[in-house]
Amino acid sequence: MNETIELMMKHRSVRKFKSDPVSEEQLAAIVAAGQMASSSSSVQAYTVIAVTEQEQKAKLAELAGNQSYVNECPVFLVWCADLYRLSDAAKRHLPEKESYEDSTENFMVATIDVALASQNAALAAESLGFGIVYIGGLRNRIEEVSEVLGLPEGVYPVYGMCIGVADQETGIRPRLPLDAVLHHGRYNAEQTLKGVESYDETTAAYMKERTQGERSTPWSEMMAKRLTEPVRLQMKPFLEGKGFLKR
Amino acid sequence: MNETIELMMKHRSVRKFKSDPVSEEQLAAIVAAGQMASSSSSVQAYTVIAVTEQEQKAKLAELAGNQSYVNECPVFLVWCADLYRLSDAAKRHLPEKESYEDSTENFMVATIDVALASQNAALAAESLGFGIVYIGGLRNRIEEVSEVLGLPEGVYPVYGMCIGVADQETGIRPRLPLDAVLHHGRYNAEQTLKGVESYDETTAAYMKERTQGERSTPWSEMMAKRLTEPVRLQMKPFLEGKGFLKR
Repeated sequence: MNETIELMMKHRSVRKFKSDPVSEEQLAAIVAAGQMASSSSSVQAYTVIAVTEQEQKAKLAELAGNQSYVNECPVFLVWCADLYRLSDAAKRHLPEKESYEDSTENFMVATIDVALASQNAALAAESLGFGIVYIGGLRNRIEEVSEVLGLPEGVYPVYGMCIGVADQETGIRPRLPLDAVLHHGRYNAEQTLKGVESYDETTAAYMKERTQGERSTPWSEMMAKRLTEPVRLQMKPFLEGKGFLKR
Repeated sequence: MNETIELMMKHRSVRKFKSDPVSEEQLAAIVAAGQMASSSSSVQAYTVIAVTEQEQKAKLAELAGNQSYVNECPVFLVWCADLYRLSDAAKRHLPEKESYEDSTENFMVATIDVALASQNAALAAESLGFGIVYIGGLRNRIEEVSEVLGLPEGVYPVYGMCIGVADQETGIRPRLPLDAVLHHGRYNAEQTLKGVESYDETTAAYMKERTQGERSTPWSEMMAKRLTEPVRLQMKPFLEGKGFLKR
């Protein structure tokens, strides 16, 4: 294969970090690599806020559900969807026209832009020898997170990302079988559910080994629990309050 | 730097492809690398449909706004957000419980999962010597695209991706200055707008060179036009009709 694919195949989330810093040069290289991802019509509708100050990190760790690694990693990045620059441009150049920050399409464009850029950045960080973990828990108390970061209208925090030198060795979590997620020509429901069946065995065995026999919940059971929990129902009112998703 | 970051820094969208095929092995390696991206609680809420059959590609090219490269690339991937597997798991394991396929949070989780996986796949393809381009135009007539691909409830096409050997040499499009998108501690509106100012000069010059002096529209003017156009307002009714974004 090649170095890039090998790097991807080795990915695992890191939740324990050494105190070694990420230098300004390294951070710049990581974010610049992120910027090179594709962006819908070059809108580049994202901003990333680097948090390194101890008190602010502790505050965000608390807001993300007391995740200690947010506190312990040397750099915590908050990836924000950002239509502020576009709004400003519309106001300056075409003040007489209605603008569409509030469309579902533009919400999606901004959110996807963030994800493409952040995934490049994640890989860039890993290629430099760091470990990373995405922090979706940053949406738990998204209103307060937005305040801590002083986010203006048109900007919302999508997730966080810890970066640092790994201080743990964790296994690589198995993925769904390839043919469960790769279909040809048409969606193949039978094939995907058959893939889940065999994945349930894989994940039960993996979990059992990882917990020294304590737990062996198959994936589909975990997913059933996950989907029947009322997770982050504040997202809709929050986003609408921020002017997103209105039409 | 290193191979991975160098690869990212060379990225440009490719819109003209040679007829060289992408082999089954290469496609498998590309999608498997995509699968290794992070996924919220391991939900892996995506499916990718590979379209190689000429008539189907032509149909999708038409639906995407007559983009000839969709037709001409050897493999066209449709990246779908997919809550179908999770729904099935909830129905089997916890049939008595209410489930949340319709939450904004789960819509976001699935959409972000697609983007992280597809960006890994894009880089994996590039690392194998292919060129790629994302096709957001696939959302233009999203209802019809969903029909062509036979997408079930809980699945929607986020975008397409052409993969193939590049048959053109294009320049690397400049990005926003780093400090416009990388802030420290708090959102810095002044810094970001200052970045746009200098980027306007960069993009005007780049555009002028690329069009032999014909056009030199600065970025913020393009963005003002972009944001004041009623683009894909069908997304909200379509997604709600598919059961997404209801709460």
